[in-house]
Amino acid sequence: MNLFLLILAKGKELSMKIGNLRVNGQRLKLTLEEMGRIGGTPAGGMHRLALTDEDRKARDLFLKWLREINLEVLVDEVGNIFGKRPGKNPDLPPVLTGSHLDTQPQGGRFDGVLGVMGALEVLRTLQEGRVETERSVMIVNWTNEEGTRFTPAMLGSGVWAGVFDRDWAYSRSDILGKRFGDELERIGYRGKKGPKRGPIQAYYEFHIEQGPVLEKMGKTIGLPKGILGIGWYDVLVEGEGNQAGPTPMEGRKDALCAAAEMILKVNELPARMGGEMVATVGEIHNLPNSRNIIPDRVRFTLDVRSWDHKLVSQATKEVRKDFLRISEKRGCRVKMEEIWRIRPTVFGAALVKKVEEVASHLGYSQHRMISGAGHDAAYVSQVSPTAMIFVPSVGGRSHVEVENTRWEDCEAGANVLLHCVLQSATG
Amino acid sequence: MNLFLLILAKGKELSMKIGNLRVNGQRLKLTLEEMGRIGGTPAGGMHRLALTDEDRKARDLFLKWLREINLEVLVDEVGNIFGKRPGKNPDLPPVLTGSHLDTQPQGGRFDGVLGVMGALEVLRTLQEGRVETERSVMIVNWTNEEGTRFTPAMLGSGVWAGVFDRDWAYSRSDILGKRFGDELERIGYRGKKGPKRGPIQAYYEFHIEQGPVLEKMGKTIGLPKGILGIGWYDVLVEGEGNQAGPTPMEGRKDALCAAAEMILKVNELPARMGGEMVATVGEIHNLPNSRNIIPDRVRFTLDVRSWDHKLVSQATKEVRKDFLRISEKRGCRVKMEEIWRIRPTVFGAALVKKVEEVASHLGYSQHRMISGAGHDAAYVSQVSPTAMIFVPSVGGRSHVEVENTRWEDCEAGANVLLHCVLQSATG
Repeated sequence: MNLFLLILAKGKELSMKIGNLRVNGQRLKLTLEEMGRIGGTPAGGMHRLALTDEDRKARDLFLKWLREINLEVLVDEVGNIFGKRPGKNPDLPPVLTGSHLDTQPQGGRFDGVLGVMGALEVLRTLQEGRVETERSVMIVNWTNEEGTRFTPAMLGSGVWAGVFDRDWAYSRSDILGKRFGDELERIGYRGKKGPKRGPIQAYYEFHIEQGPVLEKMGKTIGLPKGILGIGWYDVLVEGEGNQAGPTPMEGRKDALCAAAEMILKVNELPARMGGEMVATVGEIHNLPNSRNIIPDRVRFTLDVRSWDHKLVSQATKEVRKDFLRISEKRGCRVKMEEIWRIRPTVFGAALVKKVEEVASHLGYSQHRMISGAGHDAAYVSQVSPTAMIFVPSVGGRSHVEVENTRWEDCEAGANVLLHCVLQSATG
Repeated sequence: MNLFLLILAKGKELSMKIGNLRVNGQRLKLTLEEMGRIGGTPAGGMHRLALTDEDRKARDLFLKWLREINLEVLVDEVGNIFGKRPGKNPDLPPVLTGSHLDTQPQGGRFDGVLGVMGALEVLRTLQEGRVETERSVMIVNWTNEEGTRFTPAMLGSGVWAGVFDRDWAYSRSDILGKRFGDELERIGYRGKKGPKRGPIQAYYEFHIEQGPVLEKMGKTIGLPKGILGIGWYDVLVEGEGNQAGPTPMEGRKDALCAAAEMILKVNELPARMGGEMVATVGEIHNLPNSRNIIPDRVRFTLDVRSWDHKLVSQATKEVRKDFLRISEKRGCRVKMEEIWRIRPTVFGAALVKKVEEVASHLGYSQHRMISGAGHDAAYVSQVSPTAMIFVPSVGGRSHVEVENTRWEDCEAGANVLLHCVLQSATG
C-alpha cells in the first residue's frame, strides 16, 4: 500500500468511527451564559475565586446539572467534583474530562469553565443520544486551579495526583489568613472520600488557548504537545524609607527604583536566554506607598516559563545575580524565594495524535503548539495519558474581562472533545 | 565704631534681651510622649491621619492643655485650632507659632507634633514665669498638613491663608470617598468662625529637619531661608492585560515595564536638570496585580521639588516627553496630570536673621539651609513674615516609624522658639 492509499484508508476507518453525532452548540452557549451569571462582572468578565460564595453557587448549579443526567456524583477531600456515566464495562479504567470553575479576579468567561461545560455538553449529548460506551465517562471540576486566592495553582488536581499532601493543601491560606481547609468546609465541599487517582484510560481537557497564536494563524483547534515548565518566585527589596523632600538624591536607598531596574531585567531575560521562554512581573506591592515618602520595601513576583526545564533554572540564576548587583548599587537588600516550580509537561503523543485526527476528520483546521499556561492537565498527566484541545482566544486576551472566544469555536472544540471521549471510551 | 565693636554691641544688646528664661525640657518630653500615645504604633511610630478618631483624641487633649493655661480658644471653619495668650496691647498684631498634629501613615513621633508641643511649652513657660508680652502670642494646630488622607497637603493653612476655597476643601475626599467637610463635622471640629487671617506680626514654625544635613554637619539648629517649590503629578499608564504564560514577549503591552522605565527616568531627572532638585515616585498601583497576568494599568505618583520654580516646570516637560516616548515604544498609553503645585517659599530675611541671632546667643551651633519638605509655613508666609526653626533628624529619617530627634535638640529648638517669640512679641 503506498502512502496515499494508507492515508485514505486510515481516513475512512476514522470517519466511519466518528459518525454523525454532534454536540448542541446552542445549549452549550446557554449553559455557559447561565453559569457566567454567577460571579459575572458589569464589564462582562468573571470574578469567581476559589471557595468563595460564588464558587459554592457555581458548584451547586454544576451538581444540579450532573444529577439531571443521572451521573454518579463524588466530591473528594479537596472538593474536586466527579460525575460518572457508567460504561458497559464499569471495571475498565474510565475516560476523564473536565477543567475548573474558579476564575481569576476580574477574569474572563471562558478560562476553565469552557472545559467543564464542554464536558457537560458531551455527556448531555451522549445521554440524549442514548449512546452506550464500553468504558465509563467521568466529568471533573478541579478545585482552585487559578492559584490566585490560595497558592499554588492547580491545588485540587495536585492533591488528586499525589503531588501535594492533603493536609498541606488544607493549611494554605489566603491574603486574609483564611485556610483552604476551613473555606472548603464552610462552602460545604469538603468531601469524605480520599482521591481515587487511577487508573484512567485518558484525560482530555478542553480549554481556550489564552494566547494569540491560533487567531493569528486562522486555525480552529490547537493541539498542545505539552505545557511549559513554570517557576514562581517572590522577590523582596528592602531600601530605606524617608521624606521625599529633604532627602538628597545622593545616598537614597529607594526600593522602588531598585525594583524598577529588576523588572526591566526580567523583561529582557527571555531574549537573553533564548528558547521558548516568557518572564513576567505581574504583582507588585510598595511600602509605605505614600506620595511623599521614598519607598522603603517592595515585594514583587516573578513568573518564568520555558519548554526547557534547565533554562528556567539557568535564567533564575542569571536574574538573581542581576538582582544582587542592582540592589548593591542602590544600597538595598534583596531576597528571592522560589515558591512554586513545575517541570514542563509532555502530553501523551498517541493521544495528541488522536485529537489531531479527530479534528481533521471533523473538518476543523488545526495547529500543533505548546501551552504557555499551566493547566490541571499537567498534574493529571502524571496519572493518565493526557491531551488538551485548544480553541482560539479573540485578540489573544485572557485573564481579563474582555476574554472572549467565538461560539462557533466553542462548539467545534466540544465536538472534538465528544469524539475523542467516544473513541477512548470504546477503544 | 569699628566692626568688632559693632558686633560686640549687638551681641550685648541681644544677650540682654534674651535673659535667663528657658523652657522645661523634661516637661516637653513628657508632653510629647503623652500625645504620642494617641495613634502610637507598636514599632514606635505614629499613625494619626487627619480627621480620624485619633486626630479627634489628639485635638481633645490639645484643647485641654490650652485651657489649663487659660488661653482663649478658637476653632475655625476648617478645624484649625488657635489658642491666644493676650498681650498688654491686644490690638497689636499677635505673634503666631505652631504646626500640625496629624501624621503620615506609619509615620514618626516628631513630624508636626514637635512644633505644636514646642509652642505649648513656650506658652507654659511664659505662663509659669508670669511673663507679660506687649503683643498677644497665639499657638496654632493646622488641619491636614500631611495630605495623605485628603490631598492636597497643608489644606488647613491653605484655606486660612486664602489659597484654597473653604467649600473646595470641604469637598476633598479620601480613598473611601469620605469628604473632608463631613469628617470634620463627624469629629466635632468644624468651627463656625471664618478665617481671621491677619495681620500677624511674625509666624514661627519649629520642626524636625527631616533630612540628613544637620546631623552630618554636627549642627543643632537649622535656619531654612525658604522651602523648595513642589509639583505633584499623577501618571496613568495603560497597556494590555493578558495571561503571562501563552503571550509571547513580542507584542506585549506591559504597563508595569513601561512604568518601571518611567520611574528610572524620574530618578535620573535631578542629575539631568541640575539645581537643587529632588524627584520621587512614592506611590504605585498596579492592575490587576496578579502573579500570572501581564499588568494592564499602572498608576504612579511623581513628586518634583526645586528651589527654582522654572526648573520644576522644565523638568516636568522633559519627563513628560520621556514618558510619551517610553509608552509609545511599549505600545502603551500615558496620561500625566498635575494635581498640586506650590511655588518656592522665601521666608522673611529679617526674621530668619533673628532666629540665627537668638540661636547664636543661646550658644547653639546653627546652619543656613533650604527646606525640602513642604510646611504650613509656606502658606502662612503669604500672610505674615515667617521663619522656621529646624532640629536634627537622627539618621536623616522621617515619615517612617524610626523617625527620631534627640530630646536635647527638642529642648534647644524650643528655647530658640521661646526667645524668638518673646522678641517678636515685645518688639
